[in-house]
Amino acid sequence: MKLNVYADKMSQPSRAVVFFCKVNGIDYEEIKVHIPKGQHLTPEFEGILFFFLFDEAINLMQKLPAIADGRFKLFESHAILIYLACAFPGVADHWYPADVFKRSKIHSVLDWHHSNLRRGAAPYVFNTTIAPILGRPLNPQAAAEAEIILSSSLSKLESFWLKGNGRFLLGGNQPSIADLSLVCELMQLEVLDEKDRTRLLGPHKKVQQWIENTRNATNPHFDEVHRVIMLAKERQQHQRLKAAKNEGGSNMKKPLVSRM
Amino acid sequence: MKLNVYADKMSQPSRAVVFFCKVNGIDYEEIKVHIPKGQHLTPEFEGILFFFLFDEAINLMQKLPAIADGRFKLFESHAILIYLACAFPGVADHWYPADVFKRSKIHSVLDWHHSNLRRGAAPYVFNTTIAPILGRPLNPQAAAEAEIILSSSLSKLESFWLKGNGRFLLGGNQPSIADLSLVCELMQLEVLDEKDRTRLLGPHKKVQQWIENTRNATNPHFDEVHRVIMLAKERQQHQRLKAAKNEGGSNMKKPLVSRM
Repeated sequence: MKLNVYADKMSQPSRAVVFFCKVNGIDYEEIKVHIPKGQHLTPEFEGILFFFLFDEAINLMQKLPAIADGRFKLFESHAILIYLACAFPGVADHWYPADVFKRSKIHSVLDWHHSNLRRGAAPYVFNTTIAPILGRPLNPQAAAEAEIILSSSLSKLESFWLKGNGRFLLGGNQPSIADLSLVCELMQLEVLDEKDRTRLLGPHKKVQQWIENTRNATNPHFDEVHRVIMLAKERQQHQRLKAAKNEGGSNMKKPLVSRM
Repeated sequence: MKLNVYADKMSQPSRAVVFFCKVNGIDYEEIKVHIPKGQHLTPEFEGILFFFLFDEAINLMQKLPAIADGRFKLFESHAILIYLACAFPGVADHWYPADVFKRSKIHSVLDWHHSNLRRGAAPYVFNTTIAPILGRPLNPQAAAEAEIILSSSLSKLESFWLKGNGRFLLGGNQPSIADLSLVCELMQLEVLDEKDRTRLLGPHKKVQQWIENTRNATNPHFDEVHRVIMLAKERQQHQRLKAAKNEGGSNMKKPLVSRM
């Protein structure tokens, strides 16, 4: 039976899981769940999952991604990445090394990600850009608070997790599941206004180089998985241009009209 | 060389690591770092760690707990618990099972903990009770936001992670590292005003029973590790009584005084 992956590739943890399957040639079926429509929260989605899984709703925790490998169901993207690396014999050791010391450092990065990079990046993008697509207002105060966490996390990523001369996290010369997870988190910054993205990522040359290293080591899968993000980026740019034009128009001096 | 554990037992992730060492008879040395004094953020603390570790500051990420096992350093409590379970051969399998399916479910609980229970419990306790001890103001709005996350997390703990008839998380009959980590998180609620604690935990009978099951399965270590919390609870109760008395006094009617 094929591995079922329940995912919305607009969400970074979903992308990380699909990305890992693609790059490791895992035979999987993607069941698309569209978060913007709230499908992962609706009874219909529970119904779909009940249909697939019979005995319990995989999304009881209402989170994506989730997998069903035969009768075994799992959610939380980091737990899924570790499971896939262990349960599929063809996966190369560098993704999740058997060595207890290397493996522990990967756990450490992944745990740090939860409370730092993710806590900054996701609410920043939501509150500056994505919220209106989901029918919610932008929240500048929440965005400002998230930016502080995001900037601090990017600095730690640059100076601590990417220290040394390795091309990947923890000084590695080959990527691990931590590289996939954290790079997917940062790729959501693509949808931001370019000046915001430059302000945030600009000072962190190592972080930028590491994203490129991960892209080069995993293409064509990297670009394939992030196509949905690049399309969203284009749409955002188009809307910003349109808004700027309208604003420009409304700011134009009105032609003088004779009082006669 | 002994395992060094850098910890402040007022912090729940520190308690989980010390707890695990005690309950498994791991030979360790606890290096006490007092977060309320900000010691883990100061150059002095970095100095202490440099003295111990020579080559790099273990607390570069400014977080507790951290361990040094010989030359190997690690932080993030979940990563540390997994490392200890794997690197110390005497640790029983139930703490972190070798079975890939059981292990994956433990990873899933631990990941969920980061983004849910911890995101609710820690800021709720801080913004209702602990902040003044650290010289910070109470923040009712942040407390209200944290309570929503905490209440929702307790419901999910009750109905999902503790479903079935097992005494521990995931239906287990013996505790795992996830039980230690999540119970330590909830034990901080002891310092709350009793009516707040009852309001939050009261509706969740399974959660209360599970805390008791974990206490019974691990005592005397459970009570030993949480002594610092119970002392803090006593201090808080004493201060509340004192404040109530003072308030009562100031609300007393002033004696009538002759105008003459």
